[in-house]
Order: sequence, then structure tokens, then C-alpha cells
Amino acid sequence: MRLKTPVLLILLLSASLSAQTPNWLDAYRSPAQRLIAASQSSDFAWQRLAEVTDTYGPRLSGSVNLERAIDWAVETMKKDGLENVRKESVMVPKWVRGKESLDLIDPAPQPLVMIGLGNSVGTGPDGITADVIVVSSFEDLDAHAADVKGKIVLFNVPFTNYGATVAYRSGGPSRAVVHGALAVLVRSVGPVGLRTPHTGATTYAADVPRIPGAAIPVEDAERFQRLQNRGVRIRVKLAMEAHFEADVESFNVVGELRGSELPDEVIVVGGHFDSWDPGVGATDDAGGCIVTWEALRLMKTLGLRPRRTVRVVLWTNEENGSRGGNGYRDQHAAELKDHVMMMESDGGVFDPAGFGFSGSDGARRTVTAIADLLAPLGANRIEAAGGGADIGPSVQAAGIPSMSHLVGGDYFLIHHTPADTVDRITPKQMSDNAAAIAVMTYIVADLPWRLGTEK
Amino acid sequence: MRLKTPVLLILLLSASLSAQTPNWLDAYRSPAQRLIAASQSSDFAWQRLAEVTDTYGPRLSGSVNLERAIDWAVETMKKDGLENVRKESVMVPKWVRGKESLDLIDPAPQPLVMIGLGNSVGTGPDGITADVIVVSSFEDLDAHAADVKGKIVLFNVPFTNYGATVAYRSGGPSRAVVHGALAVLVRSVGPVGLRTPHTGATTYAADVPRIPGAAIPVEDAERFQRLQNRGVRIRVKLAMEAHFEADVESFNVVGELRGSELPDEVIVVGGHFDSWDPGVGATDDAGGCIVTWEALRLMKTLGLRPRRTVRVVLWTNEENGSRGGNGYRDQHAAELKDHVMMMESDGGVFDPAGFGFSGSDGARRTVTAIADLLAPLGANRIEAAGGGADIGPSVQAAGIPSMSHLVGGDYFLIHHTPADTVDRITPKQMSDNAAAIAVMTYIVADLPWRLGTEK
Repeated sequence: MRLKTPVLLILLLSASLSAQTPNWLDAYRSPAQRLIAASQSSDFAWQRLAEVTDTYGPRLSGSVNLERAIDWAVETMKKDGLENVRKESVMVPKWVRGKESLDLIDPAPQPLVMIGLGNSVGTGPDGITADVIVVSSFEDLDAHAADVKGKIVLFNVPFTNYGATVAYRSGGPSRAVVHGALAVLVRSVGPVGLRTPHTGATTYAADVPRIPGAAIPVEDAERFQRLQNRGVRIRVKLAMEAHFEADVESFNVVGELRGSELPDEVIVVGGHFDSWDPGVGATDDAGGCIVTWEALRLMKTLGLRPRRTVRVVLWTNEENGSRGGNGYRDQHAAELKDHVMMMESDGGVFDPAGFGFSGSDGARRTVTAIADLLAPLGANRIEAAGGGADIGPSVQAAGIPSMSHLVGGDYFLIHHTPADTVDRITPKQMSDNAAAIAVMTYIVADLPWRLGTEK
Repeated sequence: MRLKTPVLLILLLSASLSAQTPNWLDAYRSPAQRLIAASQSSDFAWQRLAEVTDTYGPRLSGSVNLERAIDWAVETMKKDGLENVRKESVMVPKWVRGKESLDLIDPAPQPLVMIGLGNSVGTGPDGITADVIVVSSFEDLDAHAADVKGKIVLFNVPFTNYGATVAYRSGGPSRAVVHGALAVLVRSVGPVGLRTPHTGATTYAADVPRIPGAAIPVEDAERFQRLQNRGVRIRVKLAMEAHFEADVESFNVVGELRGSELPDEVIVVGGHFDSWDPGVGATDDAGGCIVTWEALRLMKTLGLRPRRTVRVVLWTNEENGSRGGNGYRDQHAAELKDHVMMMESDGGVFDPAGFGFSGSDGARRTVTAIADLLAPLGANRIEAAGGGADIGPSVQAAGIPSMSHLVGGDYFLIHHTPADTVDRITPKQMSDNAAAIAVMTYIVADLPWRLGTEK
């Protein structure tokens, strides 16, 4: 039987030594090294990522691909020896892209690169043929309100950061329709790629008509801007079959390693298993699913069973409905009080950097100490805030300490694009991130005290 | 009246000083500096490139875009004050891409990124639905000949250099049909991009049936390879409307700065004005057209009229027929003996590096000396061989010294792709390359002796 270090002593030590490594961490050096070594010993995680993305492709909510991938995950978690493996039902929206196209008519006939925005309405079978007006912001739109009626509005807003720029993808159609726009184009939300279109959800305001929205590459937005600046008429035909069908059943996938002493206390890790459709959703977010799942598989393989339960959840419908995250909150409402921490990996799987963390100061000291063990992976940074779209509903409902998995790399270059494929991720990145998550998760789950109870 | 340095003296000096800069070059230091300063004083060349590619888009042979762009070039050369501006008629093939698609059926339904190969036949209206077999070379194809019948062959050949890899795009369909293949896919000829498809011409052998050919991105080729390696069946539907229509009239565009003393001796510079259709043909090859045209415009602007005639030619139909280059040779057969040098720019407009040159040793000494004046631009390298697809027919017919414009950069990342847009080229690159070409061309055209007559 394992001896528990008295919590009070640990806290006193921890406080008195301040920046020094606390003694309690010593017990975890060996398991941490074993987890890291095991993860780095093969390309297992990358191969699994390649297998799921190669075999099932993109996994849009409502698609057969997603449900097949979910069934594969359940079966594979069972083969891994995880416990209580199950599907938890949620109803999800079924948005269907259908065929779509954007043809330049003036000044030169040319089919253009485009991608419809998720959740957009379609154009009707005849498409929408109209002149384009380019604006640089919502303020610029309002300033040219008199010129918008009957036109297609292009929001040509350079990418600064996601939060600032995505406002045009989310809100553009409902802002432009007020002035009589027929449809909206947005400059893809991301840095310049290789004529790369970025999709992502648009959100209609409740009180205005819905007009179609699509994204075009940065290059095309800049071309339209130059043409407008020269006084050249820009005329296009936008055709989109996009529409919603009735909601369908989908599932969050859950697997566990039950705690040896406090099985009702749960540490949740995971990512979302659904994806946008132009790529195969490797970075966003099959990679996040696999590296968090790997945390459990590595513990299982090494016989490392922590005191508390570690649960991996592959949420459904993050991209265009958040039904998975909301469903988890509702279905697990009674046990959220026993959720010690929730971690989401949904920022890509590039070189590991560490974690963002939201929780008490004491809990922050604890996870910061644990992160010291991740220095060999370059994953020892603990940033100011942590969270995730899927853990958010539960975290908010029950005040659960929350963590996001941090990596380097240029996530927004490939985010929601055809280039979101396994080729962007190396085997070493998969192994190193899985190792970092495994170590952090194992120790938080095994701590002699419950994370967040530090004084 | 300008004094001519005696040729013999120059040659003696040139020989005796060996690696030292020959004295005759001194007369050209000032004009070279003026040409460079004029080109670098504005972003004129880049703006012109943006204007032509923005306004006319891609310029595939047989398209209205190409002919509109040609008419614009004629009009604009006249406005620039060039002389003998004219269109020279050639008949060109009209290959029409039409709609095209590649849908993965097994293991997961998914529309894939693809682009048909230029000059390919279509699939018929029902498309071709078949299993895919992946091979790594022509030898691997032959080794698996018994498995090919009734299938679509994917040539998954990593990009090494263009010459080695393009063989699969050119020859793949005719090699695979012999074993009963229904169609061919080729891994895009280029380094990995962002799920970027590369088109380009395929060439059918005369003695075998024609089957459709299309390119897929590197990422998809690698995915198919992994699936095959795992024993997973790959089934796709390829649909292409591609077909030829009757030849149509197109034109080489010609403009000149007539020589002050030896107007019948001609230095030709130029690029091809047609392009593939997925991008706007900025790098391949509107940029080459503009920077060579700029050489004449800069001389004209500065009042620098060389002894011999400088002629810019914007050839048509380089990409899928070479009718422009062949037509030039035939229409100018009588005067090819007076073509002192021909230079083609068709390797992109990135940072200037210098020129490739094919000609006599004496001529090489001369152009090497001239290149010294391009050191401030980084364009002073003279490589072993120079040529170009459009100048090739004339050069071969009449043994003309020939030059290719050399640049750095990653031409084959964007070559024949949707990403061939003006965004890949900076104003400084346009100005610097125009300057380098202007200096080289002006001096060769003004030399006291005819290039190639050195002893």
C-alpha cells in the first residue's frame, strides 16, 4: 500500500521553498520518466492519427464518416484495455455543404477558390449573380451602406488574431444583410497560405434575414481590393447548395482508467472528434483526441494506475453546434462536483509548449511544479488561462479547474482548410505531446491531495 | 555621335587582363546604373503584373482571357512608346478543362482536391469508378502489371527535380493503359505545399488508347500509399469533362526598340503570355513577360537606344502546344541569322541570381563581364546553359546564343497551381529582375562587336 504524504506538510514545504521544487514531486520523477520514455519509444500515436484520418476522412457532424470513426474509437479504446468505454448520445445538427462554387464573371471569367461558411444557408439553384463591394471593417461597411444594396459584400480584413478577425466570419452576413447585401464573402481567417480557403461557422442574428456566406483565400481578397481600388467592376456568381437537415444522433466517446483509491474523483482529458470537411481534421482535432487518449493508454501499458479516475472524452459537434460539450455537462451534472480538473487539447499538435491553466493560486502552484518535469519536452510553460470549447460548459457550470494543451506552430495557417492533414504533424510531435499530457494528467490524478484544495 | 572603341583593341585587352574587368565595360557603367536606379525607383513593374493578372486572370490557350490580355499588351506597348508593336498570328490548340472532380468512395466518402492534367481526355459523363493501385515508378508499374487491369493507377513519385518527376505526368497515362488501366492519377510534381494540386500537360503516345490523367496533392498520394500499405481498399470516382475543341487563332505579341546603327541585328527577350488556369499565371509567366518588356520600357524612358534592335516577344501557347515558339521560328526564319541573342524569362520572378548562357566561349566571356555590373542586384551569376521553351525552336534552327533568366525562390512550390498569383512576388523582385535584364540586354545590344564574334 502506498503511503500518503500528509497534505499539510506538503503545503508548508511548498510555501516555504517557494520557487524551489517541492519534495512531493520526487515521487513522480520516475513515473514521469517512464511515461515519456514509453511515448517516445515509437510512432504509435502518429500512426493511430494517420489511421483514423486516412480511414474515416473528415468528420462533419451528421456524416457517416464521423459515426464510423466514433465506432472505431469505442472498439479501439476497448482493445487498449480502457474501462467503462461507452458512447454517450447527443443529438447534433446536420449541416450539408452540397456543391458550391464562386465564378468570377467580370473582369475575367474564372472559377475561383472558395469554401462556404459552416451553417450558411444556400443560394438557391440559380445562384446569386451580383457585383462585389469590398469593405475593410464593420465601420467601413456602415460608411458605405448606401452602396451595398443588391451586392455581395467582401469583408477584406487582414488576419491579426483569431478572436479579432473571426468576428467577420461569424457576424458578417447578419451585419451586411441589414444594408441590403445579397451574400457575404470573407477573407479567410488566417495568414496567407497557398491560395488556401478557410471554412468555419457563421452565426446568424435571430432578427434579420439569412444570406449565404463563403470564404475566399487571402490572395483573392487582395485581388478584389486592388480591382476595386482601380475602379474595375467585380461581378461574380455564387452558388451554394448548403442547407440543414433534421438533427441526427451522434455520440461523445468516453473511456476511463478507474482510480485506485478515489475512483469517483475524475480528471477529464480530451478533444473533439468531429471536424470541418475540407481536410481530414488531423490538427483540428483528431490529434488532440489521440494525444489525450494516449495519456490513458500509456498509463495502462505501464501499469500506472493513479488514485483518481482519468477519463478521456472525444466530444462530438464542437465545430458547428457544441452539442457534445453541452451534452456532457448535462449528462454528468451530478458528478461534476467530483471533476477535479478538465483538460482539452484543441490548439493543434505541434511542438509541445505546456499548458494554460485556470484555477486557484494553490492549484496553479501545483501544476507549475508538475510542469518542471516536462522541461525535457519543452512543455514546462504554464500560462495564465486554460479552457476549451468542449470542457467550457462543464467548467462553467461547476467551477472546475481547467487546462488547455499548449503548442507552438502555425495552427491558423491550416485551421479549417484542405491542408488540415496528418502531413502537418510529425511522429515526434505526437509522442512528445502525448508524453506531456500523460505526465501532467497522471500526477494530477495521483496527487495526495485534491487539486484546488491547496491553501 | 558616339565613338566606337576598336574591337581588336578590346579583344586584346580582354584577353590580356584575363579575369580583370575589361575596359570596354567602363562605357556601360553609367547606363547600367541609370537603368538600375530607374527600375528601383518605383513599383511600376509589380503594379503592371498585378494589373494584368488581376484583370485578365488565367490565360489558357484558346481562352477569351488570353486574347483580351494580348490586346491589352499591344495597346500598352504602344503607349509605352515601343516600335513596330504587332500581333503575329498562330493557330493554337483549345483544350477545355470543363468540370472535374475526384470523389473518394472507399474507405470514406469525401470529395478530394484534384486537378486534371492539361491535354487530357475526359472520362465521359458517367465518370470512371474504380479501385486505385499505387505504384512508385514505371518499373513498379510493370512489376504489378497483372494487378492494374480495370483500375486507376496512382504514380506516387516524390519530387526530386522537375525533369525526373515530370516524366510521370507526361508519360503516365500511356504507360499505364498498356496494362489495362482505366485512368491515371499522379502525385503533384512539386514539393509538399498546402494540399496544393499541380496541373501541367500530359503527352499521349501515338500508338495506345488515351485514358484520362489528373494530379492529386502530395498529401493525398501519401494517404493512398498508407492505405494500400495497410491493405485497405481505395475506391474513387474520377469525372472530367476535359476535351479539345477546334484550334483557334492566337498571337505572339512583338514590340521593339529599333537599333540606332544596326537595326537589322536583333536581341530578343521575352516570356510566354499564356498560362495554366488554376492560378493567374503570375510567376509562370506573366512576370517573365513584364520584366523583359520592362527592359525596353526602361531604355525608352531613359533615352538609351542601343546600336542593335531589342525586341520583346510575348509568346502564346507555351504550356500546351509550343505553337508560339514554333510560329516565331517559322515567321522569322529569314531574319534568324541576324538574331544576335535570345533570352527567355520563364523560371519565376523571385530574387535575381543571374543568367544561364549557351554560346561560344568568347561570348561567355563577354556576358560574364557584363554580369559584373549586376553584382549590386545579386544577379551576376552566369551558369553553364541557357535557353527556354519558346526561344528553343529558333535557337536550334539558327544556332543563336541563348540566355535564360535565373532567380532564386521555390518556383516548383507554386508552378501550375492555384497559388500562382502576384502575391508570391514582391515589388522589389520585379524591379530588380527588370533592372538586371535591362542592363544585360542593353549592353549586349550596344556592344561594339556582335556577341559571338569574339575570338
